[in-house]
Amino acid sequence: MEQELSVVGKRLPRPDGVAKVTGAAKFAADIKLPEMLIGKVLRSPYAHAKIVKIDTSKARKLPGVEAVITPEDVPKKSFNRSPLGITHPPSRRARDIRDEYVLTDKARYIGDAVAAVAAVNEMIAEEALELIEVEYEKLAAMLDTTQAMKPDAARIHDFAKGNIASHIPYAFATGDVESGFKAADHVIEETFSTSKQKNCQLEPDAAVASFEANGKLTIWSSCQNSHLARASIAEIFDLPLGKVRYINATVGGGFGGRCSFNNELVCIALAKKAGKPVKVSYSREEDFVTHEGRAVYPVYALKLGVKKDGTITALQSKIISDAGAYYSQSGGTGAVTLMSIYRVYKCPNKSGELDIIYTNTPHSGGMRGYGDPEAMFCLEQVIDMAAEKIGMDPLQFRLKNHLQAGDPAPILPIESCALDQCIKAGAERIGWKEKKNAKKEGIKRRGVGMSIVVHGSGTHPALLEHSNAFIRLNQDGSANLFVSPCEMGQGILGALAQIAAETLGLSYEDIHVTAGDTDLCPFDTGSHASRSTYIVGNAVVRAAAQVKQKLLERGAKNLGVSASELDIKEGQIYVKAAPEKRVSVAETVTDATYNFERCCEFFSENATFDPDKAALSFQACFVEIEVNTETGEVTVLKIVIAHDIGRAINPMNVEGQLEGGATQALGWALYEDFAVSKVTGKTITDSFATYKIPATLDMPEIEIILVEEPVPSGPFGAKGVGEPGHSSPAAAIANAVYDAVGIRIKDLPITPEKILNALKTKRNR
Amino acid sequence: MEQELSVVGKRLPRPDGVAKVTGAAKFAADIKLPEMLIGKVLRSPYAHAKIVKIDTSKARKLPGVEAVITPEDVPKKSFNRSPLGITHPPSRRARDIRDEYVLTDKARYIGDAVAAVAAVNEMIAEEALELIEVEYEKLAAMLDTTQAMKPDAARIHDFAKGNIASHIPYAFATGDVESGFKAADHVIEETFSTSKQKNCQLEPDAAVASFEANGKLTIWSSCQNSHLARASIAEIFDLPLGKVRYINATVGGGFGGRCSFNNELVCIALAKKAGKPVKVSYSREEDFVTHEGRAVYPVYALKLGVKKDGTITALQSKIISDAGAYYSQSGGTGAVTLMSIYRVYKCPNKSGELDIIYTNTPHSGGMRGYGDPEAMFCLEQVIDMAAEKIGMDPLQFRLKNHLQAGDPAPILPIESCALDQCIKAGAERIGWKEKKNAKKEGIKRRGVGMSIVVHGSGTHPALLEHSNAFIRLNQDGSANLFVSPCEMGQGILGALAQIAAETLGLSYEDIHVTAGDTDLCPFDTGSHASRSTYIVGNAVVRAAAQVKQKLLERGAKNLGVSASELDIKEGQIYVKAAPEKRVSVAETVTDATYNFERCCEFFSENATFDPDKAALSFQACFVEIEVNTETGEVTVLKIVIAHDIGRAINPMNVEGQLEGGATQALGWALYEDFAVSKVTGKTITDSFATYKIPATLDMPEIEIILVEEPVPSGPFGAKGVGEPGHSSPAAAIANAVYDAVGIRIKDLPITPEKILNALKTKRNR
Repeated sequence: MEQELSVVGKRLPRPDGVAKVTGAAKFAADIKLPEMLIGKVLRSPYAHAKIVKIDTSKARKLPGVEAVITPEDVPKKSFNRSPLGITHPPSRRARDIRDEYVLTDKARYIGDAVAAVAAVNEMIAEEALELIEVEYEKLAAMLDTTQAMKPDAARIHDFAKGNIASHIPYAFATGDVESGFKAADHVIEETFSTSKQKNCQLEPDAAVASFEANGKLTIWSSCQNSHLARASIAEIFDLPLGKVRYINATVGGGFGGRCSFNNELVCIALAKKAGKPVKVSYSREEDFVTHEGRAVYPVYALKLGVKKDGTITALQSKIISDAGAYYSQSGGTGAVTLMSIYRVYKCPNKSGELDIIYTNTPHSGGMRGYGDPEAMFCLEQVIDMAAEKIGMDPLQFRLKNHLQAGDPAPILPIESCALDQCIKAGAERIGWKEKKNAKKEGIKRRGVGMSIVVHGSGTHPALLEHSNAFIRLNQDGSANLFVSPCEMGQGILGALAQIAAETLGLSYEDIHVTAGDTDLCPFDTGSHASRSTYIVGNAVVRAAAQVKQKLLERGAKNLGVSASELDIKEGQIYVKAAPEKRVSVAETVTDATYNFERCCEFFSENATFDPDKAALSFQACFVEIEVNTETGEVTVLKIVIAHDIGRAINPMNVEGQLEGGATQALGWALYEDFAVSKVTGKTITDSFATYKIPATLDMPEIEIILVEEPVPSGPFGAKGVGEPGHSSPAAAIANAVYDAVGIRIKDLPITPEKILNALKTKRNR
Repeated sequence: MEQELSVVGKRLPRPDGVAKVTGAAKFAADIKLPEMLIGKVLRSPYAHAKIVKIDTSKARKLPGVEAVITPEDVPKKSFNRSPLGITHPPSRRARDIRDEYVLTDKARYIGDAVAAVAAVNEMIAEEALELIEVEYEKLAAMLDTTQAMKPDAARIHDFAKGNIASHIPYAFATGDVESGFKAADHVIEETFSTSKQKNCQLEPDAAVASFEANGKLTIWSSCQNSHLARASIAEIFDLPLGKVRYINATVGGGFGGRCSFNNELVCIALAKKAGKPVKVSYSREEDFVTHEGRAVYPVYALKLGVKKDGTITALQSKIISDAGAYYSQSGGTGAVTLMSIYRVYKCPNKSGELDIIYTNTPHSGGMRGYGDPEAMFCLEQVIDMAAEKIGMDPLQFRLKNHLQAGDPAPILPIESCALDQCIKAGAERIGWKEKKNAKKEGIKRRGVGMSIVVHGSGTHPALLEHSNAFIRLNQDGSANLFVSPCEMGQGILGALAQIAAETLGLSYEDIHVTAGDTDLCPFDTGSHASRSTYIVGNAVVRAAAQVKQKLLERGAKNLGVSASELDIKEGQIYVKAAPEKRVSVAETVTDATYNFERCCEFFSENATFDPDKAALSFQACFVEIEVNTETGEVTVLKIVIAHDIGRAINPMNVEGQLEGGATQALGWALYEDFAVSKVTGKTITDSFATYKIPATLDMPEIEIILVEEPVPSGPFGAKGVGEPGHSSPAAAIANAVYDAVGIRIKDLPITPEKILNALKTKRNR
């Protein structure tokens, strides 16, 4: 039976909205502390070079300079810049390679941090940088994976033979792929490559660090994982956890790159040295070079066996990932991309492997989808090829093959799956039947394409998913909700407030949310992997239910009935059988607080949630595009995303997430390509002038269809939705290009040059 | 059996110490927010005047002025400036007279706030004040209670006939005083008067108020009662509680005057009007005029009946209190002074009453002791007189008559009483026997005097005492303790950390205390009435015990034993019977947080404490003084305070409290006298040049004797100690003056002039 909901499911404005649109929101760059210094970082001009000597004497003498630090002054402990590593169970520590220092004594890419200064203002800090004299011993630069994997390649990290940082086999391999391929009627074997995409969050990285007289550190920045950041910082700087307070200032976008430290650590090292608060704000150029982005997969080889009837017999992968100079989240994204390949379709024989290679280029890391869009770009083209091979509509092929609720799934059982509904609804909206079979002719040719995807809500059982919510009632009947996801624009705080309000029987306005401060908010692993609504949401439901129970008990005493006879709605505790018998939550809490009969009570409850599921969400994406066969230009005319959300806590936010994801996907498919010079390793695309992301005018109509089939394990049936909007469009566009003009672009981005070349090749064939 | 304690009872440094001595501590005056304005207040130059017209047009035009407010711009709701009023049960609302507005349209003393401005800097703000034109209609000024109580006196507040703000009878009267006096062999009837003492906290009042875009107000100041301040502000400014965050900046002393608002409300009104953050910092002069102080009791009449054998038969009081222009805490201090008279000695027939009178002078309010030192100054002289009348040593008289554990007490049963021990130990240290009976001769004559006092730990059952403590463990085995007393120099945070550490089995350094922020810290009524150690301490014990129980259960699982077999010490959970079997708290919490077997746990507990007792503490004070009969000067040679503390959580802090109280008492007894002109009502003593407090060189040796007889209801047996240090010395000094030269000074302060006059009168008699 459908629950009757008052707050969940409503299109409500977000609590952080007014501050953001009025400019009142304070980002880390806006923080000003008394005596605060400005920090700047000296970066290597060489892609690969040993630092022989650093002379900071001139810089130190410059009036206004209060600290100069070199590799000598930073913790001797190596670390992985992603605090997510800290949640790995010990057995999986292989993924958590610790290969960085706050400042390096060996530059591994152009932009690597070598020294830093803190001065009373920015000008002096910059002048001081110029006064630092560094003697480098240049080493051969390995600028791509081919070069780096050669037997005589220069070693970037001592431990990494052949510059292989790690080798990751697909963890849930089954059957025997060789016999699978033998049993197949057709084997499709294709090699793709995907490009490096930058997160391009609106807010460039900024951090402020301040030590109190008692040694307590407070650090403000935009990390997506406040409690893990705190734990990591404590470990790196050898501070007791209780002496580290991590605070999220307003976060201007994350998209996964803020699951890693950016300028936090150098900021802390400077503040420690200077004995004063320090702010480090990166320019957009610095951000492009140093803020991690989506990994490059220069080789993404898939091999699929299929029978004439459309049964998939085997699926194999062999992937090379370019980590750049440091490991960061490459292990995590690698594991996810492998997992993504195998969780969409039924297939008895599966295996795969991935090598992560160091190069002397800016490091890769986490970005929305985290390996999933890459997997789909390749897999969903192979699926279309297989369908074509056996003469089956690719839509039918997918309906036949995708995993359903109840099917044996690679990792966890599938609780619910509305993918059939998504595929059918999306196909109808795009006009699949007519358009798929329409004749393609003329200079501008239209085509349709589709792709599907399966995405988890959180990472269970791969990473720790421990989450908490803490609720405290005020005497006016409002509630303070303390949680620790990262509000980075996705609207999570509003969604959690809706969940709390619905559970408590209060109005949305009565929930005051506090997040992102480790001294205030309980432990949670933060915002990544589309987890927060599902996992933190469940913790909120539990905490709210506990508080509600206490309210009912107190109300029962006041109304002279038993708690089970009561419920709460719109801030009123009422007798279910006689709703006019009621007492407000405000009166009840006031009475409990200001009670002179010595039965004071304080409504304050914490709840832990630790999932045993990952509530898979399902999505079908359809696009219609037009290829100009003379210019090679691809215009996307329409994107339809039909998404099985379980329950849309706030449909407006869910649509926003899917639209935002689709926009980034369109940029990745057609325009974006982070480029470094093949000669020097210098970043070429270090601004929005050279690195093009889609603007409003580039965007087609996007239609979002929300399919709500509540998942039993979700809060009010909700699943996560942060990432999958990004996972489907690139593959669907590539398939549509094929539909329009019969060519397959297998390496991203799908540029006019590649289209024209392919058309030429095709004509010449 | 004595408990074995590791942390409680130790002389440990305070957590706020380093920041304070290094200058790193941030007081409200140190806060700088972006765009923050400086607020200034325009004050009435007349003691009593109606405001006919305010023209602010010139001020508004001054460049840099961003807000000008007059009585038109402030809430129309009258209030009482003490948030303590909010805790009165409805039946006692008579004490909570609401007679003030943020800005007044009728000036009631010289300095009353009439208008205010906020400007980009202090200079412009001050210039703007001068540009405000106010037309006053002068009214007759009532500058003392005699004048104010005359039938034809000008009415200061419309509601108050005869300028009587309230009439308070002693609430626990018993028997019949008239028959008591008839049964007496002697009746002593004396009238005293006590002077107005200023709190003279080191930090002048400062407040910063800032509204966020969503309407949420954050206010920083030094109020002693953060949660009540929040509730009061919400009520006065009609804001939901959840939209008010009250934060204690570092507090530079309180002494009760910060149980009332000072510049907070005008600061909020300016910030609201300006739409920007505003800081209002008072100068020392403004502070002297506007920050409330100890009430003047121009008439403190006591009547005591005593039999020849020393039995007290009746005790009656009739008191007049001068509230000054506004009521503030006068009702509270009045009720306390009445209570104080009757809780020291056994007496079957008791009655008393007090009238609170308005005058056109700066308002009175709360100060350390809160009516108790006044009561003792008068009562303890009357007791000496009674003893003399029947020829009994006043020490013996007190031993015979004071209330003991088990005696029927005026309000609550006495749990434990070590006053006999205190009296005997103090007498021995001062050398009572020899000195009391020594011959007095020469120009400089020495004398000894004593006084005793009984003081509560908190106010139960008069005011709300609801308190909470919240504890959360970190993975390093440290704990965050969230509580809501006010750390104003008394060392309460260290004491609570000691209590938490002792209960949890952790070390003192492992307790990180957060206090004074209503968004972070649970409900508590704040710091006043010597309550925090006793009441918040009990809440801390409970919360810590709950967390400890959870730790023991988790440890039991890990060690394979039952929880009851375990205990915790120095951060180790160990098997009591085999202490080498152990696991650290840090490991246990880390395992519970980062647990991949899906049994995550988060150690976070809140506990409420609401006392049914007030743990009376007992004290005997002895002084030796010297009177120069030629100059009238009184020199205090030694003060001995023997105090029944129950348990000294940190003996260093307890001694500090008693010494600090004695210092203020000595100032009140001999030097301090807040004076307004009898002609204009202007404050004469508005700086430390004219208002003299004792400096280091004025202070004698103070010897503190701590008598530790743990009180069953206290945390580790502790009682409160914030105030009583102030309650005894003045009376003891007065008694010692009589002992030295045979004169009784009945009105404070005991100045050389009064001594010389009294000696002259005595000689002429």
